[in-house]
Amino acid sequence: MPTRPSRSLEVVSNPHPDRDYEVAMTAPEFTCLCPMTGQPDFATIRIRYVPDQHLVELKSLKLYLWSYRDEGAFHEDVTNRILNDLVVALAPRRMEVVGDWSVRGGIKTVVTVRYDRVAAAPL
Amino acid sequence: MPTRPSRSLEVVSNPHPDRDYEVAMTAPEFTCLCPMTGQPDFATIRIRYVPDQHLVELKSLKLYLWSYRDEGAFHEDVTNRILNDLVVALAPRRMEVVGDWSVRGGIKTVVTVRYDRVAAAPL
Amino acid sequence: MPTRPSRSLEVVSNPHPDRDYEVAMTAPEFTCLCPMTGQPDFATIRIRYVPDQHLVELKSLKLYLWSYRDEGAFHEDVTNRILNDLVVALAPRRMEVVGDWSVRGGIKTVVTVRYDRVAAAPL
Amino acid sequence: MPTRPSRSLEVVSNPHPDRDYEVAMTAPEFTCLCPMTGQPDFATIRIRYVPDQHLVELKSLKLYLWSYRDEGAFHEDVTNRILNDLVVALAPRRMEVVGDWSVRGGIKTVVTVRYDRVAAAPL
Amino acid sequence: MPTRPSRSLEVVSNPHPDRDYEVAMTAPEFTCLCPMTGQPDFATIRIRYVPDQHLVELKSLKLYLWSYRDEGAFHEDVTNRILNDLVVALAPRRMEVVGDWSVRGGIKTVVTVRYDRVAAAPL
Amino acid sequence: MPTRPSRSLEVVSNPHPDRDYEVAMTAPEFTCLCPMTGQPDFATIRIRYVPDQHLVELKSLKLYLWSYRDEGAFHEDVTNRILNDLVVALAPRRMEVVGDWSVRGGIKTVVTVRYDRVAAAPL
Amino acid sequence: MPTRPSRSLEVVSNPHPDRDYEVAMTAPEFTCLCPMTGQPDFATIRIRYVPDQHLVELKSLKLYLWSYRDEGAFHEDVTNRILNDLVVALAPRRMEVVGDWSVRGGIKTVVTVRYDRVAAAPL
Amino acid sequence: MPTRPSRSLEVVSNPHPDRDYEVAMTAPEFTCLCPMTGQPDFATIRIRYVPDQHLVELKSLKLYLWSYRDEGAFHEDVTNRILNDLVVALAPRRMEVVGDWSVRGGIKTVVTVRYDRVAAAPL
Amino acid sequence: MPTRPSRSLEVVSNPHPDRDYEVAMTAPEFTCLCPMTGQPDFATIRIRYVPDQHLVELKSLKLYLWSYRDEGAFHEDVTNRILNDLVVALAPRRMEVVGDWSVRGGIKTVVTVRYDRVAAAPL
Amino acid sequence: MPTRPSRSLEVVSNPHPDRDYEVAMTAPEFTCLCPMTGQPDFATIRIRYVPDQHLVELKSLKLYLWSYRDEGAFHEDVTNRILNDLVVALAPRRMEVVGDWSVRGGIKTVVTVRYDRVAAAPL
Repeated sequence: MPTRPSRSLEVVSNPHPDRDYEVAMTAPEFTCLCPMTGQPDFATIRIRYVPDQHLVELKSLKLYLWSYRDEGAFHEDVTNRILNDLVVALAPRRMEVVGDWSVRGGIKTVVTVRYDRVAAAPL
Repeated sequence: MPTRPSRSLEVVSNPHPDRDYEVAMTAPEFTCLCPMTGQPDFATIRIRYVPDQHLVELKSLKLYLWSYRDEGAFHEDVTNRILNDLVVALAPRRMEVVGDWSVRGGIKTVVTVRYDRVAAAPL
Repeated sequence: MPTRPSRSLEVVSNPHPDRDYEVAMTAPEFTCLCPMTGQPDFATIRIRYVPDQHLVELKSLKLYLWSYRDEGAFHEDVTNRILNDLVVALAPRRMEVVGDWSVRGGIKTVVTVRYDRVAAAPL
Repeated sequence: MPTRPSRSLEVVSNPHPDRDYEVAMTAPEFTCLCPMTGQPDFATIRIRYVPDQHLVELKSLKLYLWSYRDEGAFHEDVTNRILNDLVVALAPRRMEVVGDWSVRGGIKTVVTVRYDRVAAAPL
Repeated sequence: MPTRPSRSLEVVSNPHPDRDYEVAMTAPEFTCLCPMTGQPDFATIRIRYVPDQHLVELKSLKLYLWSYRDEGAFHEDVTNRILNDLVVALAPRRMEVVGDWSVRGGIKTVVTVRYDRVAAAPL
Repeated sequence: MPTRPSRSLEVVSNPHPDRDYEVAMTAPEFTCLCPMTGQPDFATIRIRYVPDQHLVELKSLKLYLWSYRDEGAFHEDVTNRILNDLVVALAPRRMEVVGDWSVRGGIKTVVTVRYDRVAAAPL
Repeated sequence: MPTRPSRSLEVVSNPHPDRDYEVAMTAPEFTCLCPMTGQPDFATIRIRYVPDQHLVELKSLKLYLWSYRDEGAFHEDVTNRILNDLVVALAPRRMEVVGDWSVRGGIKTVVTVRYDRVAAAPL
Repeated sequence: MPTRPSRSLEVVSNPHPDRDYEVAMTAPEFTCLCPMTGQPDFATIRIRYVPDQHLVELKSLKLYLWSYRDEGAFHEDVTNRILNDLVVALAPRRMEVVGDWSVRGGIKTVVTVRYDRVAAAPL
Repeated sequence: MPTRPSRSLEVVSNPHPDRDYEVAMTAPEFTCLCPMTGQPDFATIRIRYVPDQHLVELKSLKLYLWSYRDEGAFHEDVTNRILNDLVVALAPRRMEVVGDWSVRGGIKTVVTVRYDRVAAAPL
Repeated sequence: MPTRPSRSLEVVSNPHPDRDYEVAMTAPEFTCLCPMTGQPDFATIRIRYVPDQHLVELKSLKLYLWSYRDEGAFHEDVTNRILNDLVVALAPRRMEVVGDWSVRGGIKTVVTVRYDRVAAAPL
């Protein structure tokens, strides 16, 4: 079995940096562990952003999301951390990350986090 | 058979209080009693909020909603009371509670209640 | 067979009048008669309102809608009249009534009427 | 207001009686009265049949279904009676009538009645 | 608060006993308790049957299903018991009961039980 | 065979002209001819408007739409012309006409035209 | 404007006549006239067949369906005639034609006609 | 972090072994690893069975499915192995296991495996 | 740009050849050219089979389907040829291939081809 | 086989240039090649624009999209380039192009690019 990938995000140059446009990516195959029980949690991660100089490289995003597979993480925390890591790597103009989590205890949770370069507090 | 749970909501610390973000929770398994006929009523309860210092703890939310099982409650009233209890426990920046009730007398009722810390009247 | 109910709407006190919140009710079982042909018409009536001091009592709303069963009424007119009657009975802060009518002559009609206490013309 | 139509079904000649084929008709605008409470009931009536010498005339079917508007009728009984009347009028080779009734008391009822000329018991 | 109803099913005479036809009823508002944890369980109960001399009376079915509200019951067992009680009360020609249960532990369970008077083992 | 209807729209008086409300009509049975190939085109026409003194009479709208059956018309042009004719006939406060056309050459086209009495350019 | 096409169906050779396989075609853009009122009727025509030596040529099928545009035709009759014409032109092993007609008088009609070479009566 | 659970399935007694009935369970949160690339695979596992003397215990099924999380497994093989393990543990009368796998290389795969005690080859 | 792949299908050993089970694969990204106009055609290809000694290797199936990208092919013919090639490569017990093609000339075509080793004619 | 079409877009005159209205076109049959692997990519291209003096001619749009069939193109880049080419050809008042791409590596990507004549940066 291969080793888990390290948590790094690679970028490619935005070929149209002079225009605000939106890239939306949906990754339905996210899984991590509950930090209290150690049991698996599952989510769909949705990312929307307006790139500045960089686009996220698709394969590195896949590996990045994979890197949470053995990590304990609260729903609200991990959604924020994914946003933070993507903002550091891409320096986008705007970004939204949604974590859409499976039912636990009969309750479904969706966490939505947004970043705007102009209005942002420091990460 | 166990005793019904007491009506208390527990909180955990918000790990990212310096950012406005949204947590949305959907609980399709809510039931109480009609205060006029004593017959069971059923609803899906939807909660969306922007946390400040606290997040609601998932299991305590489940127990809190369970605590209405033997209580008589009007649709409009119980939706407001759930919002009030959550606002007291979490002190959120903003919150919305939706009670989506089953058909009665051929008519379906959905009650939507919102709280905004800035604009709020005292509870 | 019982007599058709009289056209009266009963109200109950709003237990949370110090807050703007929304009540939405959907009644898919509305029928009246076409005033030109006498043939039955069918509609779903959707009501959304922000109550002030009064909520509509569910059973009286059902009887009120039933009272149109033998009455001739144009689509646009009856939707406005339902709004007017509800505004008189409830004195809501805001209200919307939608009449979503079945296909006639290959054409489907939906009528949407709104009331806002601040901006309202006299009924 | 016009008088309710009499309960008669008219037929037209089947232009292709030498072939078994199916005609399926869906009438979502059926209403009658509950024989116990006098309150309105609503249903979608679905009819499927293999004609022999006659097809049902569409307008007379509409008037026939309309004729139940002021009549008290149990769900199971009226679905059987519609089948019986259509079998008498059309003498079809096979027929199925489905009454798909609105929710009452939180429970939805669908009644399905079938006729087969070969296997049929006398009506 | 009223007392829970007793577990009795009432019947009405089948007005068309000389014909095999099907009655299908869907009750989405079923709740009981988990016999191991005491926590609430929720299900939609679907009943289909071919009546012989009796139809189930709708209101008594509603009360019967309500009577499980405070009872501990395993998914597989309660679905079988509902079938058994209905078979005793109605003596139908054929019957199917489906219990469609909410997600527990990330897993959804649906139990389907059938009865056929000809082939049936003693209850 | 009857002659095609002439292209006239009839109106009825708006019974509630002192209020802005919306009438939405959907006509899925529109067909005309391609002016380049003469082949049939099909569309759903959706009309939404805020009436002033007049409502469109339903049957005359049906005949009006029928009148395009043998006429060659480009997608963008005919959608604008339907709006223009309705504005002339009804003098509405606001109106939107949508032509939702069937796939041609693997591409689906939807044309949306709006009129606002205050902002309108002369037709 | 071009002339309406003549009613002819062209065929191409079946490249795999030694195997029973199914071809299913859906044509949502069918229109003819009501023979009683002259008003337009609309339908989706669905064709499924097991070819023998011939396949229907797609463009000629389109023209064939178009040829009904100005013709008066009852729902049940035209569905049978389309089957008959296709059986004559293709001599298929089996064929089914479904005419799925728009709502008229609040009632939707679907006509299903089948042909089987072995069991068929003469057309 | 806790250790992965061992691969054992626990059973409970079937309270109604004298009747053939069906239990269907859907587990959308299955993940294992691709044995060639080591990358995560995701599936929904659907199980339907007619129990004999034993029912599968829900929590042990959850742990059993979890146990594949770090294991390399081909789609076709793992679906068969889940069936085999369940047959050994439950000795059911009939069983079906469906593995509904996520898209890989633009292609979606669903594997369906069935067991019937009467017709079964030895495992 | 790389060269198009050659049309070869690779297989892997079926790990459970002693059992009849089904593998279903859906490939929505199929394209070839119309042999008459040279214009692109698009389809979803659905394959279901009961393997004997061999399973199709997923990546080689993807390349095989890709190999049609520049080839002219009639809908009915290419669906049969895909079945034939898969039968030769896999020698399955049973197989079905469905070609679900995009709309052309307002008509959608679905071709369904089946193979059964016992009943099969020679390819 | 015919040659690929050249990349030119033809226009027709806008018959209603004095009005802002919207034309929306959906082309689900777009394919190009991945510039890194040479493998086919698939997308639905959605175009919405407010025309000024010109409309895009439907057939030339189809040929234009076809011209990418053998070209290597990144998702973000090609969506921007389609917008740029359409803006040059049509000089619209406003335009949006959406590239809705198939799943790659378990992740779906949607790129949305907008142009507004007033606010636009030079292309």
